[in-house]
Amino acid sequence: MKIVIVGGTGTIGSAVATALQGRHEVVRVGRTRGDYQTDIADSAAIRRTFDAIGGFDALVSAAGKVHYGDFAAVTEKEMAIGLQDKLMGQVNLVLLGRDYIADEGSFTLTSGVVGHDPVRDGACASLVNGALEYFVRAAAIELPRGLRINCVSPGILIESLPVFGDYFPGHEPVPGARVANAYVKAVEGRQTGQVYEVI
Amino acid sequence: MKIVIVGGTGTIGSAVATALQGRHEVVRVGRTRGDYQTDIADSAAIRRTFDAIGGFDALVSAAGKVHYGDFAAVTEKEMAIGLQDKLMGQVNLVLLGRDYIADEGSFTLTSGVVGHDPVRDGACASLVNGALEYFVRAAAIELPRGLRINCVSPGILIESLPVFGDYFPGHEPVPGARVANAYVKAVEGRQTGQVYEVI
Repeated sequence: MKIVIVGGTGTIGSAVATALQGRHEVVRVGRTRGDYQTDIADSAAIRRTFDAIGGFDALVSAAGKVHYGDFAAVTEKEMAIGLQDKLMGQVNLVLLGRDYIADEGSFTLTSGVVGHDPVRDGACASLVNGALEYFVRAAAIELPRGLRINCVSPGILIESLPVFGDYFPGHEPVPGARVANAYVKAVEGRQTGQVYEVI
Repeated sequence: MKIVIVGGTGTIGSAVATALQGRHEVVRVGRTRGDYQTDIADSAAIRRTFDAIGGFDALVSAAGKVHYGDFAAVTEKEMAIGLQDKLMGQVNLVLLGRDYIADEGSFTLTSGVVGHDPVRDGACASLVNGALEYFVRAAAIELPRGLRINCVSPGILIESLPVFGDYFPGHEPVPGARVANAYVKAVEGRQTGQVYEVI
């Protein structure tokens, strides 16, 4: 399969690429690195990137910015960051990607444990993750041509503890390789409309 | 209690008003009717309406537009309707309402059965409902002053069957009065961070 990994140079995306690249053609898309660069918050940029890549069999997204911070200081501006980037960025990868993906292809998006297991400073992330998980369930029942869509909800990665660990007191960190397995299941399996939690 | 019901002249809001108005001061806010008018998609309008109403003890929102239609034709434009209105409209009622609500007050938002139980044409609604339900869970753990926040997820109302019934084949319709009870529980109870399903 030709598999596009958006966020393919990040912590999760790199682990997914490692897990898939032995037996598939992996195309890494990053913000500034990778085989192609794009800004998922800009649907025109997504379209241009897909035009450059051409058709593909599967798309994995492990990309997206969202605001973390004291809920008391959250306004619609902080909310808009995640709505435009992690949420609509990933949703637009699906909406636009439908024109490029092969029959029986799959989309795999990324939410996160801060969805159903909220943490301090995480309200914007929870909102975005809930939207993604419910979107995937709904889109799955309407996608044509045998297309599938799933979501991976990873816990805090061991590899991310130095940067994000303080947000997740008491959370059990998971190895990136174990998180990557959920994406492999989504891409190489036949399920659709699922949220795979890795916690 | 002084209870503001946004969407207070709609099908659900009217049932909630009926259930609460005997023993509380109910203020109905509508788009074009009610004691006050506002456009929840416009945060400046929300702010003006709260200034006019003054302080309150509880806010119920049963308002919000979202696009329904064939997923094949959904683009970011159709998604934006629900993101700006039903989602960020209700979220902004909370973010801005924090400046007007009394200690120990409560916010009660409205998602819908199309969240976890998707229907054809409902992808935009599912996304928005998931965002609302996860937001409520997260906001609950950070709200100060004993403030509470919950969400009601109603099934299709008997009263709404003539307009929306075709979207919900096989769904068991629920009476508005039973849906209203969930809002009473949210307002008069002490729970927080809950999603009350009425299906």
